[in-house]
Amino acid sequence: MIVAIVGVGLIGGSIGLGLIESGFAELVIGYDPSEDSLKTAVDHKCIQVAVNSLDEASLADLWIVAVPPSAMAATLQQIAVVAKPTAVITDTASVKKHVLADVPESIATRFVGGHPMAGREHRGVFFARAGLFEKCSWVLCPTDRTEHDAIRWAQRMVYALDAKPVVMTPEAHDAHIAVLSHLPHAVANALVLQGSELPRLDIHGGSWSDLTRVAGSNPELWNDIFSMNREATAAAIEGLVGRLERFRECLLSNDPSAILAALEDAAQARVKQVARELRAGNAE
Amino acid sequence: MIVAIVGVGLIGGSIGLGLIESGFAELVIGYDPSEDSLKTAVDHKCIQVAVNSLDEASLADLWIVAVPPSAMAATLQQIAVVAKPTAVITDTASVKKHVLADVPESIATRFVGGHPMAGREHRGVFFARAGLFEKCSWVLCPTDRTEHDAIRWAQRMVYALDAKPVVMTPEAHDAHIAVLSHLPHAVANALVLQGSELPRLDIHGGSWSDLTRVAGSNPELWNDIFSMNREATAAAIEGLVGRLERFRECLLSNDPSAILAALEDAAQARVKQVARELRAGNAE
Repeated sequence: MIVAIVGVGLIGGSIGLGLIESGFAELVIGYDPSEDSLKTAVDHKCIQVAVNSLDEASLADLWIVAVPPSAMAATLQQIAVVAKPTAVITDTASVKKHVLADVPESIATRFVGGHPMAGREHRGVFFARAGLFEKCSWVLCPTDRTEHDAIRWAQRMVYALDAKPVVMTPEAHDAHIAVLSHLPHAVANALVLQGSELPRLDIHGGSWSDLTRVAGSNPELWNDIFSMNREATAAAIEGLVGRLERFRECLLSNDPSAILAALEDAAQARVKQVARELRAGNAE
Repeated sequence: MIVAIVGVGLIGGSIGLGLIESGFAELVIGYDPSEDSLKTAVDHKCIQVAVNSLDEASLADLWIVAVPPSAMAATLQQIAVVAKPTAVITDTASVKKHVLADVPESIATRFVGGHPMAGREHRGVFFARAGLFEKCSWVLCPTDRTEHDAIRWAQRMVYALDAKPVVMTPEAHDAHIAVLSHLPHAVANALVLQGSELPRLDIHGGSWSDLTRVAGSNPELWNDIFSMNREATAAAIEGLVGRLERFRECLLSNDPSAILAALEDAAQARVKQVARELRAGNAE
């Protein structure tokens, strides 16, 4: 299978490395607007051939589009022009409804939206590694029109990378990710801003470090992500604000039994979540 | 110097170990209502002598009270009866105004409120270690009435444990900790409860793990802590809710420049905070 990776950063580069190492790909072609990234990707064996335009990758059986969300629509337009009619196309953006709305009609039945749930503290192909997706969930969002064969190829690719394919609708994906990723980022940002009003911060413990670790992540990328999932994220924020307001009322009522009940609910929810992760083999 | 540790759990036990290893204490006497904890503390060399009542520790020059916040008032009453007139008394509770209000008049000039900012994932003396407080901030809250000599002894004890003494008023301590510790715990709890309404959680990434790691911590202990710092925590929640509401309005207005400006503010605040920690030698 010939694979084309469009956008060789941390994610695209790690996919290339993994697909080469696992033997899934006979050939991995890479394209990136940055010459430096392309060169590093070749040096690190993330891709085998670097090309300077997408039509040089037109032989690809599988296209993996790992560009920033804001570049997705234009990139998919270009791929639609040059891809073989039988090619399968997938992406790695962390928003799915918005991306699917931008998929050109001519590739709509062969496009499988994807979102690897891989943590990334560092950016750029320099940090790519074959095991980045090991044991990670990788959401796939086929639509009613997606051909079964295209879904199967996307699933095989995910398995080749040691990740777990999870099929969801784009709507369900975006609602889940609004709570599980976009909300935590919004909260971390709000917390650091609140902390910056304190005279001193050196007296914090581990909980502050945990809750602010992702604060301030790449503003341009996150502007894209928040903008493209703004309704679901706004709803998630509204839900959290309601919960915080209720806990604040418990505190102000000075009713220890109400506070304790709220804390016990949270402890139970946390135990159930950890147990679910352990069963899913996904525990940290 | 003869040291009495009242409450030999993770914190009390680690203090004992550290004060013995550093040579600060000639003798460490330990008291705990749990026979098991006392025995483990002796076995692990956290204390040298175990006693079954506080009057058996009346020779102590320094009392370190590491009991749960809800047991603090009664414990301080008992210590006030048996302590030498020259003894210095300090505590380790994570709320300070409430504890100081409970300090008996007879020991008020010799009492120095303390709060070691040490992370603790595990509870109990079994996990005690001498280095627990290394490089940690340790807040000390003397009042106008506290004797200078008592403050100096508390500071020496903190230095002996390789921690950094930070002197603050009880009010400033509680307001800081409301934002830097109690708020993160309240947020983590609200997040897990929100997550428990989702059909699936196995598609989360690192940010969800970070922001929910402290969720559901020991409900009884946290009921004490929240109840004893409820006004400052309620104010901290109100501040965060306001920030989240403003970000939600940015999202709903669909003005990417407003979203980007908010994200850039957070990124700047985060960079400044990390830089401050690096300067303080406190970076993780």
